[in-house]
Amino acid sequence: MTSRAELSRLFHPRSIAVVGASAAPNKIGAMPLTLLRRHGYAGRIVPVNPRGGTILDLPACPDLAALAEPVDLAILAVPAEHAADALARARPGQVAGAVVFTSGYAETGEAGRARQARLEAVARERGIRLLGPNCLGFMNVREQVYATFSPAPMNGTVAAGDIGMVSQSGAFGAYAYSMARERGLGLSYWISTGNEADLDVSDCITWLVDDPHTRVIMVYMEGCRDGAKLRHALAAARQAGKAVVVAKIGRTAAGAQAAASHTAALAGDDAVYDALFRQYGVARAHTIDEFFNLGYALSAWPQRPAGRRLGIITISGGVGALMADDAQDAGLMLPEPAQSVRDRLLARVPFASARNPVDVTGQAVAEPGLLLDTADGMLAGGTYDALAVFLAAAGSLDSLWPTFESFARELRERHPAVPLSLCAIFPQARRQALEALGCPVFTDPSAAIRTLGAVAVMEDAAEPVVMPERQAAAAELPAGSGPLNEIEALALVRQAGIPTVDARLVASADEAVAQADAVGGPVALKIVSRDILHKSDVGGVRLALQGAGQVRGAHAGIMAAVGQQAPQARIDGVLVAPMAPAGVECILGMHRDPVFGPVIMFGLGGVYVEILRDVSFRLAPFGHAQARAMIAGLRTYPLLCGARGAPPCDVEALAAALVALAALAHAAPDRIESIEINPLLALPRGQGVLALDAVAVAR
Amino acid sequence: MTSRAELSRLFHPRSIAVVGASAAPNKIGAMPLTLLRRHGYAGRIVPVNPRGGTILDLPACPDLAALAEPVDLAILAVPAEHAADALARARPGQVAGAVVFTSGYAETGEAGRARQARLEAVARERGIRLLGPNCLGFMNVREQVYATFSPAPMNGTVAAGDIGMVSQSGAFGAYAYSMARERGLGLSYWISTGNEADLDVSDCITWLVDDPHTRVIMVYMEGCRDGAKLRHALAAARQAGKAVVVAKIGRTAAGAQAAASHTAALAGDDAVYDALFRQYGVARAHTIDEFFNLGYALSAWPQRPAGRRLGIITISGGVGALMADDAQDAGLMLPEPAQSVRDRLLARVPFASARNPVDVTGQAVAEPGLLLDTADGMLAGGTYDALAVFLAAAGSLDSLWPTFESFARELRERHPAVPLSLCAIFPQARRQALEALGCPVFTDPSAAIRTLGAVAVMEDAAEPVVMPERQAAAAELPAGSGPLNEIEALALVRQAGIPTVDARLVASADEAVAQADAVGGPVALKIVSRDILHKSDVGGVRLALQGAGQVRGAHAGIMAAVGQQAPQARIDGVLVAPMAPAGVECILGMHRDPVFGPVIMFGLGGVYVEILRDVSFRLAPFGHAQARAMIAGLRTYPLLCGARGAPPCDVEALAAALVALAALAHAAPDRIESIEINPLLALPRGQGVLALDAVAVAR
Repeated sequence: MTSRAELSRLFHPRSIAVVGASAAPNKIGAMPLTLLRRHGYAGRIVPVNPRGGTILDLPACPDLAALAEPVDLAILAVPAEHAADALARARPGQVAGAVVFTSGYAETGEAGRARQARLEAVARERGIRLLGPNCLGFMNVREQVYATFSPAPMNGTVAAGDIGMVSQSGAFGAYAYSMARERGLGLSYWISTGNEADLDVSDCITWLVDDPHTRVIMVYMEGCRDGAKLRHALAAARQAGKAVVVAKIGRTAAGAQAAASHTAALAGDDAVYDALFRQYGVARAHTIDEFFNLGYALSAWPQRPAGRRLGIITISGGVGALMADDAQDAGLMLPEPAQSVRDRLLARVPFASARNPVDVTGQAVAEPGLLLDTADGMLAGGTYDALAVFLAAAGSLDSLWPTFESFARELRERHPAVPLSLCAIFPQARRQALEALGCPVFTDPSAAIRTLGAVAVMEDAAEPVVMPERQAAAAELPAGSGPLNEIEALALVRQAGIPTVDARLVASADEAVAQADAVGGPVALKIVSRDILHKSDVGGVRLALQGAGQVRGAHAGIMAAVGQQAPQARIDGVLVAPMAPAGVECILGMHRDPVFGPVIMFGLGGVYVEILRDVSFRLAPFGHAQARAMIAGLRTYPLLCGARGAPPCDVEALAAALVALAALAHAAPDRIESIEINPLLALPRGQGVLALDAVAVAR
Repeated sequence: MTSRAELSRLFHPRSIAVVGASAAPNKIGAMPLTLLRRHGYAGRIVPVNPRGGTILDLPACPDLAALAEPVDLAILAVPAEHAADALARARPGQVAGAVVFTSGYAETGEAGRARQARLEAVARERGIRLLGPNCLGFMNVREQVYATFSPAPMNGTVAAGDIGMVSQSGAFGAYAYSMARERGLGLSYWISTGNEADLDVSDCITWLVDDPHTRVIMVYMEGCRDGAKLRHALAAARQAGKAVVVAKIGRTAAGAQAAASHTAALAGDDAVYDALFRQYGVARAHTIDEFFNLGYALSAWPQRPAGRRLGIITISGGVGALMADDAQDAGLMLPEPAQSVRDRLLARVPFASARNPVDVTGQAVAEPGLLLDTADGMLAGGTYDALAVFLAAAGSLDSLWPTFESFARELRERHPAVPLSLCAIFPQARRQALEALGCPVFTDPSAAIRTLGAVAVMEDAAEPVVMPERQAAAAELPAGSGPLNEIEALALVRQAGIPTVDARLVASADEAVAQADAVGGPVALKIVSRDILHKSDVGGVRLALQGAGQVRGAHAGIMAAVGQQAPQARIDGVLVAPMAPAGVECILGMHRDPVFGPVIMFGLGGVYVEILRDVSFRLAPFGHAQARAMIAGLRTYPLLCGARGAPPCDVEALAAALVALAALAHAAPDRIESIEINPLLALPRGQGVLALDAVAVAR
């Protein structure tokens, strides 16, 4: 059976056994039974309890072995020490999927890990897919499947809708369920994954990608153990055009520490997750409000904005300016309306402001057609990818409701491709009517603009996602593992296709003089040893040497200094290289993330990387557009564009170098531990790049 | 009569005349009358209408001259072209204050400006204080004074409370009123200032500072024309211990452009406003939500947190980590609880996390005392300035309400000095009960943390505010205005008390040689001319000269190059100075802001200021603590602390230089247009600073 068919039985069950079923309201075995009955689950429900009898009017079965027919789903609401035994009673074929609620597994230490391993083994032997343990279970909202013991649905259920929600944390998940209900979001599925003994967040994303009722996937995560699987899931979501919104904890050192002390999952480097999200067009929310604003808008809009060009219409110039502030912060553009649109507005309302943000003034209240005509004119030109309209408190006025309703309806009909967000206070019923038209409503205009900005970031990952499949080619490296010497490291960089300085290894002062002569012009001499990381610190570097005398002297000086300061180092010789031309010093690096494999790092050299931490990351491999985005995303990017009278650098060649290193790292993931090209010189436009020094470690 | 007594009659009127009163519901003259009657204003109301008769059962008076008794307040709800005439009918003493609603004044151009000038003159002649024109008026919530034509109070009024709200924009004000009602905030006053012909935002802040019913002042502003008045108002608020929260538009270029096209007020440089807010401990909100979160928390807490040490308690480890992320972003500290507190928690709940954020786990639901004991233990040690507690959706559960209510009550009683914020979903009545105990409730935990962070920023302005009174001393400057030459500019810097390089002006090559000899060691030669700003560009600088021959040659070379490349420049001579020691190059500048006067700027030299725009500003004068905060607030601050093996710089001396330049600028505000010390060399700790070059412009 395919994984999809297995998951379909689990998440879409026609029959459910509740092991540990109880009628006592304070038992966790009572909750799913109560919820399933109360909300009218249409499938077969079998309480399982060794005492038999009937529970909530349903005849109970003593154990899984005694089931008259197989069930799609078994909910295990029994103590941790009994769950594996209870599941072990099932014969292969009797149970397709199981949800295990209880804690006391891998999250608690050694004994718990052993208990979890046994549970996994039991499930695997019987072909049972497992959600949990230590999870709140799941809900299939449309079909009233309440495989959960969360009391959240007791206070009212969420509407069925197109948002699939996955949470590694049960507590967060329960809170998010309540928030979704408060904010009127409609859910398809709500899934908590807990310890992820079998099914993890990636499996659930993949399931939701394939689910025809889900359009938006909201994920809360703390970490992931299988990077490739998550990448596949996100790539599939992207391919299917389904938006993914993620709240991931551990952005900061304090958060990461708290996350690590909380979760058994390997947290991993947050910067790498951030790179992953950018690369796969995932919107990352930094707060719970952002998380819900994104889910809300993406679910309400019939389609996402195609770009960053935002039109703003307001009935208050001041709030318009505030929204313009937000738009600039969010990286959105505010192109002007066409002259004809501006003229028409100013002819009707001379004291209006016809630039973007367009302030139609309070006159919108007196003249019902003003708002629609202005918006229609603005959108007719194809100038805008999205429109945000601030209506202040006017949404509460009964007299104006027909104006606003027809405004939203007409605009959606005439310009279906342009998402519309309204900013106003509306009574709940009117808000819902607008949402049904495809217009999300925000009380805080800043929230509307920031949401648009976060969605625009999703579209930046516009180039097709490169799937992390291995290529055949592999890097040629010296035998063995550990650090390479500089000559070998530069050779590896050259293999990637990145130009390097013409460095020649010499074994004696005579050879150094000869090679310096061959190079011509002033040269640099450097000690070559895999044991010496900081060559200057041990007197191993001499620069700008001219003529045989200087070269010979420098060679002798280097050998003497190194012999004294690093007597244990294995010396491979000395390299002779021409002095570097003028350029901007960059750092290009690659390291292996334990979860996601090769990660590429780029930044400007020295202070900029070390002190200002102005670096960007992407997972290998990637294409030219991602590489450009990595470079342009730096705060120091203007320094590559010809700041302070310097010539602009060859950014295209830089991007090509990033792509090349990523391809090499991807092609030979098992052989290279890390590479750092420092400096990688960015030369003036048209002149390419030049790697001057490199450190590499083989695996 | 004092201004305070005048404003008291206006904002606190015992009698109100409504000029242009009407019973027709679509007239702006109908709204105040309707609201005053409906909400039970206790004072005397006199409708004024030339047609006389009765309006809403009140006998109308034909004009202000016909008033039987003086009134405290006249509301002018008549067209712009008639307002001055209507007011002119009042005899001196008949009307204390007036509110003018209508637009068509300075905001509309030349004719409107003339109309406004006439209105101002009429009011001044009669001793009438004026709010508006082009404003929505004001409300005194406690006394049901509805001097407004905003329909917002028709949909329900806000509760009386301790927040005074002032808005330059009527539309924003009306929206904010509705938001305050939706969010359950209590207001003392709501004031919209419009064109500010007489009363401006600063007057209103001062009024609210003196109002015993107001504790928190929320201000929306677009700009201000009288910087000194605003500074006095903010200083008074600070002195009175009243919190000021500001939303000011125009943070970004796009926002500033939109603001400028919207408002007649001089927008001014936003960076200067930002400096002002920091300096006077004003919390700046960047979104409407932030604005209300701040007002809400500051009003709910009995007192503000004394520092940045935050304790977090959560029943979900994941959300705890998310809150830790927010806390770090917000610059808050998360100290660990005492070992005894940790031990006690872990003894009760072995799978809890006892570090900060403290995760008491879902066990808080099963064990009622757990939450209170843990929080009490944490706060008993005096380790925390504030406490934030995440209770997830548990607030909705009836069974848990007594636990949470007594938790909040007990904690407030035992630790009244530590503000408490709860993060949870509570039904409205319970939320209000908690607020009444002094605990604000946030549904988004991030909003709770960010609010705490923004409040902590207010406390950074801990040093007493230096009031902008002039001092006697004045800078000695060459006669006349315009640029100074470098020798004169350095002399001015020395007058401020900032050490400068020992630069000597010479008139000939012989003098240059003699002075170079006197200086000793290698010297620099530079052309001295007030007409040459970029000395290097015209060959006017030679460095590291040693011996008479080099000095003589350099002098000749400079004179020749400058003669050729800047033949028109007036040459004052050449300066001879010792070569500079090693240090970090900074820029220290002063410019005159048209609204706020002298502003001090500080940043690290070159790329950091020019490309990364990493600069900080403060208004002159200020003390050492503000100067330290200016320096430490830079992203590049680590470069002054001994980055990459360099010795740490003399930051105290840098701070002293900032204070000194601010004092000079403040002492001689009419004589100095601008100064830029570039570079100001920050020497290693204990060695001070050294100004190497300066540009100054006299007024």
